[in-house]
Amino acid sequence: MFIVTMLEEGNIANDESQKKSKKQLKKEAKDALKTLKKEEKKLEEIASGDSVEDYSKDKYGSLGMIQSKNSHKMNRNFTEIKELNVNHIDKMIWVRGRLHTSRAKGKQCFMVLRQQENTIQCIIAMGPLVSKPMVKFVSNISKESIIDIFALVSKVNLPVESCTIKTMELHVQEFWIVSSAKTHLPLLIEDASRRIKQDEEPESLQIKVNQDTRLDNRVLDLRTPANQAIYRLESGVCKLFRDILNKKGFTEIHTPKIINAASEGGANVFTVSYFKGAAYLAQSPQFYKQMAIAADFDKVYTIGAVFRAEDSNTHRHLTEFVGLDLEMSFKYHYHEVVDIIGSMFIEIFKGLRDLYKEEINIINEQYPVEPFKFLDPPLKLEFPRAILMLREAGIEIGNEDDLSTPDEKLLGKLIKAKYDTDFYILDKYPLVVRPFYTMPDPENKKMSNSYDIFMRGEEIMSGAQRIHDAELLIERAKHHSIDLEKIKSYIDAFRYGCPPHAGGGIGLERVVMLYLGLDNIRKTSMFPRDPKRLTP
Amino acid sequence: MFIVTMLEEGNIANDESQKKSKKQLKKEAKDALKTLKKEEKKLEEIASGDSVEDYSKDKYGSLGMIQSKNSHKMNRNFTEIKELNVNHIDKMIWVRGRLHTSRAKGKQCFMVLRQQENTIQCIIAMGPLVSKPMVKFVSNISKESIIDIFALVSKVNLPVESCTIKTMELHVQEFWIVSSAKTHLPLLIEDASRRIKQDEEPESLQIKVNQDTRLDNRVLDLRTPANQAIYRLESGVCKLFRDILNKKGFTEIHTPKIINAASEGGANVFTVSYFKGAAYLAQSPQFYKQMAIAADFDKVYTIGAVFRAEDSNTHRHLTEFVGLDLEMSFKYHYHEVVDIIGSMFIEIFKGLRDLYKEEINIINEQYPVEPFKFLDPPLKLEFPRAILMLREAGIEIGNEDDLSTPDEKLLGKLIKAKYDTDFYILDKYPLVVRPFYTMPDPENKKMSNSYDIFMRGEEIMSGAQRIHDAELLIERAKHHSIDLEKIKSYIDAFRYGCPPHAGGGIGLERVVMLYLGLDNIRKTSMFPRDPKRLTP
Repeated sequence: MFIVTMLEEGNIANDESQKKSKKQLKKEAKDALKTLKKEEKKLEEIASGDSVEDYSKDKYGSLGMIQSKNSHKMNRNFTEIKELNVNHIDKMIWVRGRLHTSRAKGKQCFMVLRQQENTIQCIIAMGPLVSKPMVKFVSNISKESIIDIFALVSKVNLPVESCTIKTMELHVQEFWIVSSAKTHLPLLIEDASRRIKQDEEPESLQIKVNQDTRLDNRVLDLRTPANQAIYRLESGVCKLFRDILNKKGFTEIHTPKIINAASEGGANVFTVSYFKGAAYLAQSPQFYKQMAIAADFDKVYTIGAVFRAEDSNTHRHLTEFVGLDLEMSFKYHYHEVVDIIGSMFIEIFKGLRDLYKEEINIINEQYPVEPFKFLDPPLKLEFPRAILMLREAGIEIGNEDDLSTPDEKLLGKLIKAKYDTDFYILDKYPLVVRPFYTMPDPENKKMSNSYDIFMRGEEIMSGAQRIHDAELLIERAKHHSIDLEKIKSYIDAFRYGCPPHAGGGIGLERVVMLYLGLDNIRKTSMFPRDPKRLTP
Repeated sequence: MFIVTMLEEGNIANDESQKKSKKQLKKEAKDALKTLKKEEKKLEEIASGDSVEDYSKDKYGSLGMIQSKNSHKMNRNFTEIKELNVNHIDKMIWVRGRLHTSRAKGKQCFMVLRQQENTIQCIIAMGPLVSKPMVKFVSNISKESIIDIFALVSKVNLPVESCTIKTMELHVQEFWIVSSAKTHLPLLIEDASRRIKQDEEPESLQIKVNQDTRLDNRVLDLRTPANQAIYRLESGVCKLFRDILNKKGFTEIHTPKIINAASEGGANVFTVSYFKGAAYLAQSPQFYKQMAIAADFDKVYTIGAVFRAEDSNTHRHLTEFVGLDLEMSFKYHYHEVVDIIGSMFIEIFKGLRDLYKEEINIINEQYPVEPFKFLDPPLKLEFPRAILMLREAGIEIGNEDDLSTPDEKLLGKLIKAKYDTDFYILDKYPLVVRPFYTMPDPENKKMSNSYDIFMRGEEIMSGAQRIHDAELLIERAKHHSIDLEKIKSYIDAFRYGCPPHAGGGIGLERVVMLYLGLDNIRKTSMFPRDPKRLTP
């Protein structure tokens, strides 16, 4: 193909030439002949395979470590491949991306360049602009290296099925290494991106990457399209939570993680050496968001790390996770707050569905799942009703028993079958299974003004009306054998007038896991912490 | 006044009556006379001061603890006093708020009701709708109690200078206690709200509340107008930071606080008991935001708690604070990132100035300060230039010395005098004073590609280009005597291709303190932690 191009360039018998003098024509013909001879020689060298001069030597290589040399400040415009459109066709562009895959084939090399979850096919082919050593150089670059290429955007005849950009490819003319990857990778992005088997699909013999390998090499694992999308969606959950609550007049606050007393009683709390004394890591911002209410902030939320020293090695427990906590005063009945929390979730789900469609599709490609269903307004059931449903399904359970994880999952299935929703609120839990600061039900002393919220049969939020009366709080704390001296400043917060209030704490990683129907919370924590894992 | 009202109500000689039969008229006259006699008796009782029947007894009292009784669900519309306008005049409204002050005066009681930083004058005066016992009851309610009142909105003739609502007052007809405050308060909101003395003002003899009393009783202290405004402005800084970076394509991430190795070397780190082993509290999200860059997230930010086990008891150190961290890849030069950070700050300052004007005014009422000045684009100086300025001012300082706190403050003054800005970026710090992962300057081995950012002469952000090459990182870590085994997963993150990147970490409480010109960081941390304080 490039020979034709050369001849056309060498062809001087064009319209314009006819206006020129004979002398001029003769000179131009001579020059063209010289060029042609030169090209011929180059082609002969290429054909014989022993080119001596590397005529592409200024068009490839390594940039060296980019250390911000002032002389290296370059005003190049880089293009994001996801933004490529028909206007780019037949134009030259600079692209920085990762070498996803490469395959040398004769005198050319086919590559896939990746930017986050987007991929495009690239071809580097020997010719007058690309020398044999250049193709060889490119063929030897290790996968995952970061490269700068200068390339012609070309339309393709057949769609490139293996890439996200299907209608265009890049014809590479310059190739520069920005940052090299080691030749041996502990996991391949292709393997880590492979679609998980569905029930009806035959067992695949292809390589899978197990969870510990993924987490041990998290920086590579996070490069898969699904992981790129999971953490963008996770950031979307936080954004929606904040935007919705800001609109409702909430104020964001920050609460201390180092505390002098365990907030929910003494169990499951991490101890910190604090200068010459000891302190604890907060299991929730509970006390502090309530104090903010007693301090007139009226409606508050906070997003931050919470810590649980539980030796639970399950698919849904982490020792450190992100809590989305909210608390607000109400006028007469805590259902005012439950309604706001319920509608907030519905708005979050609508926001995810509408604004993160692309991310959800990418994740479903690797982790297929039934779409998340919800009712608007959300389903709200009372706890005793749930107990009845479980008993009808053959489960033996007492009126004041808490739900076990299998009970919760079964209940989720029963509710899905009956109401066609993956989201529901369970109201009025037995008092005995809730923390000491939970307001008892005024009409039934064994129950409480508390609620849990579920997604696909797993709890993602726990909440309640809190006791805002110091005397009742002391009574309940004593009942739970809590050392009053240690929670003195918390109790005192309610001595100077405090509005009735309620709230809840949401586990971010659980919301994302269950919304997407993933099987393990470690898939939705960027750098998860569990009893056995502290690295990376 | 109410006597007139009564007579008018009793006057039956109106137009309508003329159409009525004589019998009817006679009956109505009798009824009216009865009512009049009754009112007369009531007025006599009031006048004599020994009313026996409390005719207001259903109009005041305590609601009792609001425990969300279903029978107590009330459909009352409450009004926020800040939303009162001329349309409310002569209408009855329900208001819930705090009893800010109250003063009984003869047969009436003047009160100020407070909602957050807003206040309104209320009057309860004995009359046919308000009994003597009711006025007495109201007069005895302790300050800071939360009350519901039903009141007539009235225009006032003279502006009420002591309240934020100056043109209206409330004439109370019902008064209900929602939550009582103890009679003795450890601090008074009025005292805690008092304007601080300016240099030129005479020393006031009025009560001041010292910082420890404030912090020991933080729930009360936070109720002052300035504190309400400070934390709304602080939430605004976070909102602006996120909104601006979201628009620039950043992704929010969450990084672990419990880590297996100290990120900046071994010093100043809190130790946590982690099951049978030990762990540390992260001094910054440094390693993790860089790993997110190596994992292709391109531009990331995170807001969260960071911990410093420094025994520094100063006006600007906390052991736990909120870090606003960002990190992003760049193409050729870290100044690409510095420019983005600089313009982000300018956008934050403009946002505060435009969107939080009211909060700034309220805070300045108590803490007067010169407005915060900045240039657009921001001033950027090189470190050696700052050293020269200090030397010209008589300070002895070496080329590779770090700036001491007094040096920084003096430099701030010199720069303010010369450039009229409270905000500037100092670029190119000596390598020796920066962490091991800082990229050395390629043109001067003693310098580095690092920068600090200052507000009113105090550092609020530290940042740099980071080393993205594993071999150079190892060399620098060794130079700093850091145990390579402990940071293995961090170093390994750079073995599989990583773009050049830079970023920074901002201290939220410092930004708010210095923007507002406050004298102590404990004023901008809702529940501050320092070496001596772990409560509340």
